[in-house]
Amino acid sequence: MKIVVHIDDAAQWQTALAEALPQATVLTSDAPENERQNADYLAVWKAPAHLLNEQIQLKGIINLGAGVDYLLKTPGLPSDVPIVKLRDAGMGELMADYVLYGVLHFYRSMDRYASQQQRASWQPHAVPEKAQWPVGVLGLGAIGSFVATSLSQAGFPVVGWSRSPKQIDGVRCLHGEQGLDELLRQVQSVVTILPDTAATKGILNAEQLAKLPKGASVINPGRGSLIDEQALLDALGDAKHPGHLRGALLDVFCEEPLPANHPLWQHPSVIITPHMAAPTPLNDAIDQVVSYIKAFEAGESLATVSPEAGY
Amino acid sequence: MKIVVHIDDAAQWQTALAEALPQATVLTSDAPENERQNADYLAVWKAPAHLLNEQIQLKGIINLGAGVDYLLKTPGLPSDVPIVKLRDAGMGELMADYVLYGVLHFYRSMDRYASQQQRASWQPHAVPEKAQWPVGVLGLGAIGSFVATSLSQAGFPVVGWSRSPKQIDGVRCLHGEQGLDELLRQVQSVVTILPDTAATKGILNAEQLAKLPKGASVINPGRGSLIDEQALLDALGDAKHPGHLRGALLDVFCEEPLPANHPLWQHPSVIITPHMAAPTPLNDAIDQVVSYIKAFEAGESLATVSPEAGY
Repeated sequence: MKIVVHIDDAAQWQTALAEALPQATVLTSDAPENERQNADYLAVWKAPAHLLNEQIQLKGIINLGAGVDYLLKTPGLPSDVPIVKLRDAGMGELMADYVLYGVLHFYRSMDRYASQQQRASWQPHAVPEKAQWPVGVLGLGAIGSFVATSLSQAGFPVVGWSRSPKQIDGVRCLHGEQGLDELLRQVQSVVTILPDTAATKGILNAEQLAKLPKGASVINPGRGSLIDEQALLDALGDAKHPGHLRGALLDVFCEEPLPANHPLWQHPSVIITPHMAAPTPLNDAIDQVVSYIKAFEAGESLATVSPEAGY
Repeated sequence: MKIVVHIDDAAQWQTALAEALPQATVLTSDAPENERQNADYLAVWKAPAHLLNEQIQLKGIINLGAGVDYLLKTPGLPSDVPIVKLRDAGMGELMADYVLYGVLHFYRSMDRYASQQQRASWQPHAVPEKAQWPVGVLGLGAIGSFVATSLSQAGFPVVGWSRSPKQIDGVRCLHGEQGLDELLRQVQSVVTILPDTAATKGILNAEQLAKLPKGASVINPGRGSLIDEQALLDALGDAKHPGHLRGALLDVFCEEPLPANHPLWQHPSVIITPHMAAPTPLNDAIDQVVSYIKAFEAGESLATVSPEAGY
């Protein structure tokens, strides 16, 4: 069995997979062309098109992350090879911590204290009851559900939204266009953890952002395409003309790295992190890749990615 | 039965206590002198000395907070009246959220990203395993124990420290001078939730701060007196000469409000909040005051404050 890995730091993955699957030949994508062809499995993150096109006997592609938008857009992606993706792999906890940090930042007025600190101003702000601080989570896949559940366990009322109906303990689940409208009109913070598809592009545009209560905040650890960045900037306003929204914590952007001259960098109400909300933790991910390969080899049925749905 | 309340917004407390104890006369401390004398109970936060001195038939004093240092230093505090204090009253969760925010701030490199954002620098930092990020909690009273437990539930290895030995599930408990030394040498963040007593004054001085690993951070939601502020500034260094420590989140100070010209305000690695880590939530506190008064009236034995120990 031959497995070819393509990802940053592929050598680490190669070593760990070779150890877990001693019967397999594990190569990285910079192996010579004749060696890396005829692979049984590709384990990839943002792989070049040629690596996919040159394969002739693939049994499966394992996407080394939760977002498959890049893979599905790769020209010449074989249409008859099943694709699986890392569904959580420890990313749920990383994402939940990131989101909880963001929610606490606004809930506990840390943005106001930061601004007050610049002028040495000692001015406490009351902490509202958590019951008065509902948080919305757009996207209830494996990671979105984990995040919604953990916000609920932290004591916040959580409203979740997905395209099709879902049920999650402790989370009020809405769906469809009307559900999105209802969610946006009531939450103090909205968190976007949707996949990048035609249906989710710009889902938070000017019209939708305007539905949020005055002073609400936006947390985006999902995909840059989910938010219309200009509409967000308009809704945030500036020092002279404060806008409808209070602030944003953003990890992903339409263009990454975020260009140095982009106005989001300098906005005082925006926190920028460089796409690090949920880096894949190696050990958990390896375990999952190994179990996928064993399941493929055993002919077991697997939950595969739907290229039509886009996730 | 007569109860006199002294605290900011005493009217709110008066209303809530009167409702919960219909047989009692509940007054605030700005009632006329002849009315507020002969009280059975005082429910107070930072009460003036005369309010304590003028009482002649007190059955109990209820301190409306966890810290009794102010009350115990009040001149003429009657020595024969039992004192009880709000032990948690929802403050545990408020404090735990504040501390978790601070730990995540450093653990997830949010301090580095804030600094990078100022120069539009896109530079991800790896997220270490939580197992590699032990957090120390100094003080294992009701609130300290709650905080230690909740950090442990969030996945961090937690080392706790108290004067006398304690046992808390999921927390490695140390005590005494040697225990403090051992704790400081191994934690990435140290959290101080000790009472203000002669024994804890300046417990984090230059010598103790130097024991922390290079790049560790300090979180103080407890009492300002616990940290030698000049030693902390020295350990943090400045832009030209970065010090041994990475940063601090501070809620309490030797002088409050923190004077506008204090160098802590301007230090780029310090986050200042205005003594708001754990404001007393009214409803929870009222429930506890009522149960204290009922227990006093029923002659039940109560865990009282020890003026000698200072907590």
